[in-house]
Amino acid sequence: MIVVLKNETPKEQEENLINWFENQGITVHISKGEYNTVLGLIGDASRIDTDLIEGLEIVQNVTHITEPFKKANRKFHPDDTVIDCGGGVLIGGGHFQFIAGPCSVESPSQITEIARAVHNSGAKLLRGGAFKPRTSPYDFQGLKAEGIELLSEAKKETGMPIVTEIMNANHLPLFENVDVIQVGARNMQNFELLKELGKIDKPILLKRGLANTLKELLMSAEYIMAGGNEKIILCERGIRTFETYTRNTLDLSAVPMLKSLTHLPIVIDPSHACGVSKLVEPMAMAAAACGADGLMIEVHNDPVHALCDGPQALTPEQFDKVARKVMAIREII
Amino acid sequence: MIVVLKNETPKEQEENLINWFENQGITVHISKGEYNTVLGLIGDASRIDTDLIEGLEIVQNVTHITEPFKKANRKFHPDDTVIDCGGGVLIGGGHFQFIAGPCSVESPSQITEIARAVHNSGAKLLRGGAFKPRTSPYDFQGLKAEGIELLSEAKKETGMPIVTEIMNANHLPLFENVDVIQVGARNMQNFELLKELGKIDKPILLKRGLANTLKELLMSAEYIMAGGNEKIILCERGIRTFETYTRNTLDLSAVPMLKSLTHLPIVIDPSHACGVSKLVEPMAMAAAACGADGLMIEVHNDPVHALCDGPQALTPEQFDKVARKVMAIREII
Amino acid sequence: MIVVLKNETPKEQEENLINWFENQGITVHISKGEYNTVLGLIGDASRIDTDLIEGLEIVQNVTHITEPFKKANRKFHPDDTVIDCGGGVLIGGGHFQFIAGPCSVESPSQITEIARAVHNSGAKLLRGGAFKPRTSPYDFQGLKAEGIELLSEAKKETGMPIVTEIMNANHLPLFENVDVIQVGARNMQNFELLKELGKIDKPILLKRGLANTLKELLMSAEYIMAGGNEKIILCERGIRTFETYTRNTLDLSAVPMLKSLTHLPIVIDPSHACGVSKLVEPMAMAAAACGADGLMIEVHNDPVHALCDGPQALTPEQFDKVARKVMAIREII
Amino acid sequence: MIVVLKNETPKEQEENLINWFENQGITVHISKGEYNTVLGLIGDASRIDTDLIEGLEIVQNVTHITEPFKKANRKFHPDDTVIDCGGGVLIGGGHFQFIAGPCSVESPSQITEIARAVHNSGAKLLRGGAFKPRTSPYDFQGLKAEGIELLSEAKKETGMPIVTEIMNANHLPLFENVDVIQVGARNMQNFELLKELGKIDKPILLKRGLANTLKELLMSAEYIMAGGNEKIILCERGIRTFETYTRNTLDLSAVPMLKSLTHLPIVIDPSHACGVSKLVEPMAMAAAACGADGLMIEVHNDPVHALCDGPQALTPEQFDKVARKVMAIREII
Repeated sequence: MIVVLKNETPKEQEENLINWFENQGITVHISKGEYNTVLGLIGDASRIDTDLIEGLEIVQNVTHITEPFKKANRKFHPDDTVIDCGGGVLIGGGHFQFIAGPCSVESPSQITEIARAVHNSGAKLLRGGAFKPRTSPYDFQGLKAEGIELLSEAKKETGMPIVTEIMNANHLPLFENVDVIQVGARNMQNFELLKELGKIDKPILLKRGLANTLKELLMSAEYIMAGGNEKIILCERGIRTFETYTRNTLDLSAVPMLKSLTHLPIVIDPSHACGVSKLVEPMAMAAAACGADGLMIEVHNDPVHALCDGPQALTPEQFDKVARKVMAIREII
Repeated sequence: MIVVLKNETPKEQEENLINWFENQGITVHISKGEYNTVLGLIGDASRIDTDLIEGLEIVQNVTHITEPFKKANRKFHPDDTVIDCGGGVLIGGGHFQFIAGPCSVESPSQITEIARAVHNSGAKLLRGGAFKPRTSPYDFQGLKAEGIELLSEAKKETGMPIVTEIMNANHLPLFENVDVIQVGARNMQNFELLKELGKIDKPILLKRGLANTLKELLMSAEYIMAGGNEKIILCERGIRTFETYTRNTLDLSAVPMLKSLTHLPIVIDPSHACGVSKLVEPMAMAAAACGADGLMIEVHNDPVHALCDGPQALTPEQFDKVARKVMAIREII
Repeated sequence: MIVVLKNETPKEQEENLINWFENQGITVHISKGEYNTVLGLIGDASRIDTDLIEGLEIVQNVTHITEPFKKANRKFHPDDTVIDCGGGVLIGGGHFQFIAGPCSVESPSQITEIARAVHNSGAKLLRGGAFKPRTSPYDFQGLKAEGIELLSEAKKETGMPIVTEIMNANHLPLFENVDVIQVGARNMQNFELLKELGKIDKPILLKRGLANTLKELLMSAEYIMAGGNEKIILCERGIRTFETYTRNTLDLSAVPMLKSLTHLPIVIDPSHACGVSKLVEPMAMAAAACGADGLMIEVHNDPVHALCDGPQALTPEQFDKVARKVMAIREII
Repeated sequence: MIVVLKNETPKEQEENLINWFENQGITVHISKGEYNTVLGLIGDASRIDTDLIEGLEIVQNVTHITEPFKKANRKFHPDDTVIDCGGGVLIGGGHFQFIAGPCSVESPSQITEIARAVHNSGAKLLRGGAFKPRTSPYDFQGLKAEGIELLSEAKKETGMPIVTEIMNANHLPLFENVDVIQVGARNMQNFELLKELGKIDKPILLKRGLANTLKELLMSAEYIMAGGNEKIILCERGIRTFETYTRNTLDLSAVPMLKSLTHLPIVIDPSHACGVSKLVEPMAMAAAACGADGLMIEVHNDPVHALCDGPQALTPEQFDKVARKVMAIREII
C-alpha cells in the first residue's frame, strides 16, 4: 500500500500517522518529494482499514500495489481453473458449457421434458429454480424442497448434473443431490451465506450483484475460497443502469476483464440481463465471441410463454438454434 | 392491473391471454379503442407475475393501479406509525431521535465513554457495530457476541436502548438484549433473513440497499411486516452513482417521497453516505429540514480518528454542535 | 397516447382535463373501468407535453402507443438503411465496415502511414480527430482546420473516405472534404448542432451520450432526419456506470435492441468504451457476433503508445489481427 | 502529478517513460521503494494527457496533487465569489436569492403576472424559458426571440433582472437585455458554447449535466473562466440514477462538497430534479439548510397546471409559503 500525504501536512500529524502504522507492525518507507511525502507500507497491511486511511484529512490518496483478492487472483494462479460440475462435465480452461432449463421448476413432466430437449441440443447442465428470491412476499416463492426433488429425478433420467439457487445456509441439507449451488445476485454480499459455502465441497455459481463492481464480485468469491472451497464459477447477468428498453445492461466487457484478473471460469446469463427473448440469441453469440466459458439460458415448454413468444425464455427449438450458432462461434475463437 | 395490448395483436392471441387470466380467477374488463385494446384485471392479481406479462410480445405496457406493498402503504394506514424503541424512546409521528455511536464496538471504555457523551448531547439511542459486514474476508469482522455484551453494559450505564446490525438469523439468540435490530444495505434483499425478523417482536431498522429503488425498500419492509412484525424504521444511507467525490450519493428526496408512500418512520445516515466528516453536519441539517424522523450518526473518541479529523465519524464535540443545529431546524418545521 | 386516471379522481377535474385535450384539437375516447378511467387520445398528440400530463396529480400513468421517433422507426421503414459514405463505401443492410485511425491527427506522416496500414488490413474508412472535445480548457484541443487538411491528404493518397468530429456548426465550411461527420457523445443533445446537420447532405455518425438512453439517441437522430438528412449512422461507445475497472460500460445489447427499433446502421466503438487496448479485440469480436454494422477502432503508430502497449489504441499489427478475427465471425452470422 | 509504476516494470521502459517526460520539459523526481518506483513530475504537467499515462501498461496509478481546475478552485481563491446579477441583486458570499418564474414564457400577461407575484414573495430574479431544449424535434421549442422580449417587458415592469437559457452562441445578440445567461444540463459540455460565453461580461448560470461529476462541472466552469468571464453560478438540478419514483435524484451533498472545492456560488433547482411539485418545498428547505446560495423554482399561473396541482411547478401561493419557510431556515444557519 502506498499512501500519498497532502503537501501541507503538519510534521506532527505525519509522525503520528507513521507511528500508528508502525504500532500495527508495519514498516514504513518514507519518500519526500518536492511537494508530497509518499509512505510505502511494507508488511502485512491486510488489517489496515483502507477506507479509514483514505478518509483522513492529511491523506491525498491511497494506492494498492496488489489487488485485495489473493486466491482468486490470476497473478498468483496463472492457469485457468477447470471445474468438474459432476458426471465429468467441465467448465473453464477451454471447456465451454450450456446451463439450460426453466426459470422455476413446476412439475415432473415440465422439468423432465425440458431437460431431455436441452440435452439433445447440447446442454450438459440442467438449471431450474426451486427456492425463488422474489421482490414481493406475496409472489410465488418456488416449490422449494419438492422442486429439488423434481430436479433430482430429471437428473436421473438424463444424467445431467443440476444447478439451483440457495437462499439460506440452513437449507444446505436439502442440496445434497445438487451438483452446482447457485448464489443469486441479491445474495452476492450475504457474507454469512458465502462463509458457509466455503466449508462445503461443491462448485458454487456466484452471480454478480445488480450494482456490484467486478472487484466486489471477486471479493465475494474470495470469501468462499478463503473458507476452503475454491470451485467458483463467476456469472455476469446484467447490471442496473439508467437504460429502460432492456431490464438490465449486460456487461460483456466483464468477460475479458475478469479473464485478466482471475483464473476462475466466467459464464454469462443473457436471459435475465435483457428480459426479452429476442436478445438472448445475439447476446449469447457475443458472449461466446468474447471468451465466456459458458452460457446460462432459460428454456420453457409451457403454454403461457408459448402463447406469445415474448418473455426472456426460449422454446426448446429456439434454444437448439442458439446452441448451434454459439458452437460455430466457439470454433473460430 | 391494467394491461395495454399492442395495436397489431392478432385476435387469437388476445383471446388466449384473456382466457389465461380468467383461468387464474381474474375478471377481465375489455375496452377497445381505435388503436389499442386495454384489459382491466379485476380480482386478486397478486399471483400474476408482472414481469412475465410485461415481457409478452403482444403487451404494450402494464400499469399497476395500486402499489404492490399493502401493510407499508400510507393509503391504507394514513396515520404515521410511531415506534417504541424501548425505554420510552419513540421514533415517528413527530418524534425525532439521534442514533449515535461508533462504527465498531471496540472496548468497554470506548463504547461507554461515547455513549455518555452522545447521551449528554441529546442522543437517545446508542449504535455500535458488533457483527460487521466487510467486503473482504480478510478484514476485521467485529467483536461479534462480545461486542453485543459491551453494548449491553453501556446500555446499563446510560439507560440508552441499543441498535446493532444482524447478518444471520441464526445469531438471533445473541440479540435478546438488543432493542432495535439493524438490517444492513447488503442484506436488504436477503429475504430469508427478513422472513425470520418478521417473526420477532422488536423494531427493525431497515437500510436501503446501495442500488435499490424506494419501491424495493418498501417491498422488503413488507416482507417483515407480512410475517407479523410491523415495527419498521426505514433508513436512507446513500445510493451508488457515478459521482466520485462522495462515496455514495445521499438521496434526500427519499424522505418526502417515502413520507407520501408509507406511514413508517424514515431516518437518514449521513455518515456512511458521504464518507467524509465535513459533510455530516450540512447533510444532517438538510435531512432535518426535509422531514426525516431521525439521524444515525457515527461518533468516535479514539486517537486514530482524532489524529486527523478526516473520516466519516465525528468527535463527541462535533456531534454536540450538529445536534444543536439540527434541533434548531426541527423547531421551525 | 393512453392516459390512465387515478381511481379517486373527482369528476370535475376529469372533465376539465378532457376539455383541455379537446381544446387542443384531440378526440378523447373515454373508457370507464371498475377502478379507473382510461382516456385514449386520438389525433395529433405531438404538441402535448407528456411530462406535464404525467405530472398531474390525477394521472396514474401515460402510455405511448407509438414510439416518439418516426423517421428513424423501423415500423415505418422495415428495410435496413444502407449509407454510402463516399467512394462507394457502404454501411448497413449487410455491409460491414471498419473505421480506423488515430485518436488525434498529429502530422502528415502519422496520418498517412496509419491510413495505409489500416487500409491494407481491410479498413475502408479513415478516422482521425481534428477538433477534440476535452474536459479541460487547458488540454490540447486538436490541430483543427490543419487536422482536416492532413486527413484530406491521406484521403487523396489512399482513396479512403474520412470521418471526423464536428463541435460547432459554424465550422461546417471547413468540413467540405469530410465524407462522414461525427457528432460526439457530449454533443448528442446539442439540438442546435443537430438541426444544422439536418440541412446538409453528408452522412452523420451520431455517438450515444454517456448517460443517454437508446430512445434519446433515436430522438437525436430524428432531429437530424426531421431536417431532411436521413443518412445517420448510430454509434454505441460505452455508458457511464458504477464499474471502475473499465472506463465506461460497453452496452452491446444496444445493437440488437436498436436493430429492432430502427432501420439505421449501428457501429460500435470498443476503444473509447473500455479505455484499455487488451479489451478491444474481444469486444470487437462480440460486437460483430451480435450484429453490428461496423467497428470504429483507434490505431496508432507513435512511440509514446508503442512504448508500453497499454492505452486504448492498437498498433497497426494488432489491428490487422483483430480485423481478421472479426471477419471470420462475420462469415458465420 | 505523481506516477506510480508497477513493481515488475522493466528498467528500459521505465527510462523511456522518464525520457519522454523530460522531453516535454518536465523535471522528474524518482523515488524507488522496495516494491515500486514513484515518479514525481515537477513543472508544467498541464500538457500531459493523464488518460494516456494512466493507460500505459507499466503505470499502476496516477495521482493529481492539485485539482485540474485553477480559476474555480477555492484553494487559490479562498473568499466566496459574490456575483452581481444586475440591479444590485447579489448571489454568493452570504447573499441568497430566489430565481422564480414559469418553465416557458407563454404570453405577456402570463410572465408579467407571475413576475409580480414572485417578486412580492421575495424573489429578486425572474426565470422563464424562451429557447427550450426538447428531446423531440416535434415538441414545442419555445417562443425564442419573442420570449426574450416578453421577459424584457416583465423586467421593465418589476425591475427584476432576468435569467434565461441559451442554446446557440449565434443567438447571443438576442441576449443583450438578459441579465444572467443559463447553460442547460445538456449543454454543460458544449465546449464551443462555453468558450463563447467566456468572452462576454454577463453572469452565467451553469447547470450540472444529468450524468456529470462535480469535477466535470467545475471543469466546464473553468472553460468559461479561462476565457475571461469569472461570473459563474453553479446549479445542481438532479442526476440520472436507477430510481424511478423521482424523475432525477437531487444530489444535495453537491452543495457542501462544491463549497469546499470552489469559491463560486451554488444554487439548487428542486423543480426539475424531482418532477413532482409536492417535493419542491421539502427539497427547497433542505437545500437552504445545507448552505445553498439560492433556489431556482418554477412557478405557474395557468389553468392546465392549476387544474390538478400535480406537476413540478408551484402556484404563486405555494411559492410564497415555500419562500417564507426557506427564509426561516436561512436565519438559523
